[in-house]
Amino acid sequence: MMSASTMKSPQKDSSSCHLTHLSSWQKLVAAHHDMRDFCLREALSHPARFDEYKLTHDGILFDFSKHLITDDLLAALYELAKQVDIEGWRARMFAGEHINNSEDRAVLHIACRAPETAKIHVESENVMPFIHQVLKKIKNFSNAVLDGTIKTSNGQDFTDIVNIGIGGSDLGPRFVVDALRNYATRLNIHFVSNVDGEDIEPLLARLDPARTLFIIASKTFTTEETMTNAHIARKWCAEQLGEQAISQHFVALSTNEVEIKKFGIAADRSFAFRDWVGGRYSLWSAIGLVIALAVGYDRFAELLAGAHSMDQHFQTAPIERNIPIRMALLGVWYINFYNYHAHLLMPYDVRLGKFAKFVQQMDMESNGKSIDRDGHHVDYATGPVIFGEAGTDSQHSFMQLVHQSPLPIPADFVICARPHHHLAASHRALMANFLAHTRALAVGQTLEEAGGDPARIFTGNRPTTSIILPALTPAHLGALIAAYEHKVFVQGIIWNLNSFDQPGVELGKKLAKPLKEMLDQHQMNAHLDCSTRGLMAQILAVSDAQKTD
Amino acid sequence: MMSASTMKSPQKDSSSCHLTHLSSWQKLVAAHHDMRDFCLREALSHPARFDEYKLTHDGILFDFSKHLITDDLLAALYELAKQVDIEGWRARMFAGEHINNSEDRAVLHIACRAPETAKIHVESENVMPFIHQVLKKIKNFSNAVLDGTIKTSNGQDFTDIVNIGIGGSDLGPRFVVDALRNYATRLNIHFVSNVDGEDIEPLLARLDPARTLFIIASKTFTTEETMTNAHIARKWCAEQLGEQAISQHFVALSTNEVEIKKFGIAADRSFAFRDWVGGRYSLWSAIGLVIALAVGYDRFAELLAGAHSMDQHFQTAPIERNIPIRMALLGVWYINFYNYHAHLLMPYDVRLGKFAKFVQQMDMESNGKSIDRDGHHVDYATGPVIFGEAGTDSQHSFMQLVHQSPLPIPADFVICARPHHHLAASHRALMANFLAHTRALAVGQTLEEAGGDPARIFTGNRPTTSIILPALTPAHLGALIAAYEHKVFVQGIIWNLNSFDQPGVELGKKLAKPLKEMLDQHQMNAHLDCSTRGLMAQILAVSDAQKTD
Repeated sequence: MMSASTMKSPQKDSSSCHLTHLSSWQKLVAAHHDMRDFCLREALSHPARFDEYKLTHDGILFDFSKHLITDDLLAALYELAKQVDIEGWRARMFAGEHINNSEDRAVLHIACRAPETAKIHVESENVMPFIHQVLKKIKNFSNAVLDGTIKTSNGQDFTDIVNIGIGGSDLGPRFVVDALRNYATRLNIHFVSNVDGEDIEPLLARLDPARTLFIIASKTFTTEETMTNAHIARKWCAEQLGEQAISQHFVALSTNEVEIKKFGIAADRSFAFRDWVGGRYSLWSAIGLVIALAVGYDRFAELLAGAHSMDQHFQTAPIERNIPIRMALLGVWYINFYNYHAHLLMPYDVRLGKFAKFVQQMDMESNGKSIDRDGHHVDYATGPVIFGEAGTDSQHSFMQLVHQSPLPIPADFVICARPHHHLAASHRALMANFLAHTRALAVGQTLEEAGGDPARIFTGNRPTTSIILPALTPAHLGALIAAYEHKVFVQGIIWNLNSFDQPGVELGKKLAKPLKEMLDQHQMNAHLDCSTRGLMAQILAVSDAQKTD
Repeated sequence: MMSASTMKSPQKDSSSCHLTHLSSWQKLVAAHHDMRDFCLREALSHPARFDEYKLTHDGILFDFSKHLITDDLLAALYELAKQVDIEGWRARMFAGEHINNSEDRAVLHIACRAPETAKIHVESENVMPFIHQVLKKIKNFSNAVLDGTIKTSNGQDFTDIVNIGIGGSDLGPRFVVDALRNYATRLNIHFVSNVDGEDIEPLLARLDPARTLFIIASKTFTTEETMTNAHIARKWCAEQLGEQAISQHFVALSTNEVEIKKFGIAADRSFAFRDWVGGRYSLWSAIGLVIALAVGYDRFAELLAGAHSMDQHFQTAPIERNIPIRMALLGVWYINFYNYHAHLLMPYDVRLGKFAKFVQQMDMESNGKSIDRDGHHVDYATGPVIFGEAGTDSQHSFMQLVHQSPLPIPADFVICARPHHHLAASHRALMANFLAHTRALAVGQTLEEAGGDPARIFTGNRPTTSIILPALTPAHLGALIAAYEHKVFVQGIIWNLNSFDQPGVELGKKLAKPLKEMLDQHQMNAHLDCSTRGLMAQILAVSDAQKTD
């Protein structure tokens, strides 16, 4: 396999093909100027606009008609997509090439949800047999825990599952389990991620070790937070059930066989995944074990199938009708040409309450970078600040700013047409609010409509994508997540970033180590900066005061 | 009492005193240019800087040394504070003047936490007797529920409390109850806010009506979401316990006596607050009843006292040593001169997991505006996008962007020196990470330190405030919240905004009403824009398909 640095299209190396020098980019600069009088309210008065700009896949509707776009503008964006060779990069990802160039790895979360009959090669190995072997292991294990075939160390059924992981080994499954709450099995699912002792101590205090199964999710089995918490859980379990119970109460999601064995976990209780699955894209891999336990394996399989369906759409739909590509292009349009650097995710569904937090991780860790694939500082903006909470709550909170801030914030609104609950009037109220706020953002309110009160003027012209899922099924959720994953991928290609590494995480780790040692030894290194010294002195003083209390 | 429009300092009306024309503003424009080579790493090598720039109050340390500031720059910011008459406006707020000009109301959440002996007048009434009368009612009621003097309709003790409110009637208490979990009483506390039926239906399904007390929190007793959920709860309760149980199982936090009575709630079960407490500043008022039930009245009183202590600091400390004023000025410095429009809140404490969400509401609903107090469109940026989640989790998520994005994001880092849990090593790891990330943001990493790998270059120079609380006590939490409230107040004054109304919320309501009617009647108005029509057609089609299923 070629490394990504030798692989990228050759014209990239010539400075005339630097992003901001591309002819399509220059066209967009001009288009932005020409669009200064574009009025969304006026545009939306044309009846055909909705049908012209909507895209659908598997029953999910994406309404792009409330964007600051025209046919010509879209054409210019498509040209950009072609000039940066989105289609080529997409093909490279699906072909298992090492597009994660800094770590020299393939990027194949898409393989995790492909059917067994697919053939996806990394180096010369077809990875599909490995993936489906792990999936069968997940299926057998989760079914056996659920039906009671797999017992606790004293022969009872498990009642509680604790997933110990952080970052991608936590937030993806946590979001999905929360979103699919209507499909919950009989198991109580808990998540521990933070090294803050307040995360694990109170949880253990209310659990029965004899009925609890721990999942230790860490690819390397060395992640500081995860292993700290894993050892706390292990000690708690061993003290109450005896050392021999560990093998029956712990499971590992990891590839570090040596450390897994040292911990006391048997090979049949460890689930592997490979280095071509990045943490923030790993819920589809062995990291999804907790999802299978929470909602049942069949639902997990439906989640994968929904994502795979979106993968196929992304892989095969032309740029002009491709949902993730359009989402990505619109983001670039606002970030780089309008200087709108934030992006709101607004699900009108309490079950999607963690959606923004999940996409925050996926997007900001992927494209929150300023050094491009060639090692140069970029001279353009990259990934947005993602934020959001469920509506209608947000309407009583930050939506004020979204409606009236001098700086508009593009937003994605998500709703399910069909609820799982039985409160039909509540759901109609929810949907009315969903429709009302995207409408208000688009059309605004004139001074006249505001009854002459200038404080109630809304400029409108604030772009949104409305996404309607038929219902929050595992398949639709899988498709929704996959659409955002591919959006982030496309934006990374446009900005010439490697979206699949995370040097920022590593700098923190490097600096934390010596500081932890100073705190452990209760003495400061004289070479620290004055602020860190001062803060540490304050911490140590409070801790000293406590000792003499 | 004068209305705010006649009240504001007269020089405000002359265009030479427009914000961006102020001499201090112009000085800051020049200073920003002069500061272009300012290097935080270099500045932090001066040992005295930490002590020079830190401020403390009641044992809480605010470290401002990791900011892009010098003594001269701070002096220019203080001059701005003086020119916009922060001290005058502050005095007006504390004196009960109608600084909420659009609604012609005083702004007196500070009165809710003042001692009984204080005298704070609205019109000619000293409001302190009213406030302390309500506090006594809260004290008596919460103590009686907790000690079992107040019984359920069938003579048992209450076990579960459901607070039904939205926006300020929900998020403030929800955040505080979550943060003070170590002080929890025996009661199980639940919150329902969203009109999404998925919020209330599953909760009721697992509660015992015979042991549940509902708190209906809505100042007007007409808020759509709250009253929808209140009536669902009422019906559920009446069906299972009989109509006569309502008066014993429901409490109102409201001023609408007519509607309260109609609902079936007796006067001794209703708790009042006045129009000079804005929703997002209302946790200190009757809205705090659920806090008193969750942690006990004495703890609630400590929370108020901590906030009052910060009020006194804010009211009396000179601009140069005033914590909320400095926080506000630094925000303006970055937002208006550096164009850093986002602001990160990063608590290293899982108990403060909802802190960013809470401040998001408080800040973005207050200052997310573009029409100033004089009815003019502002020509400068206003309130930031607030976001954040607890560290260390965030280190595996969006912190990548915060470290390496081309556009820096100023941040506040918060930690407690002393934990409530017993896992000392975990806490040292948490503190080391807290110190490491503020340090990394400030000093960055050079190409040489990165071992020659350009992808690992960190520019540093990214400003943060580190806040160390001795511990997460009610008093320290109260002080922390009050500091942010006053920060938002000061920024609103600088930007010449009324921080205390919310026209954006009202536009959504206005547009939702006719859309709700169309959904109820299952027919669309022909005059809708094409997008709203298209979305509604999709919703109705799915709902029709369901009926024929």
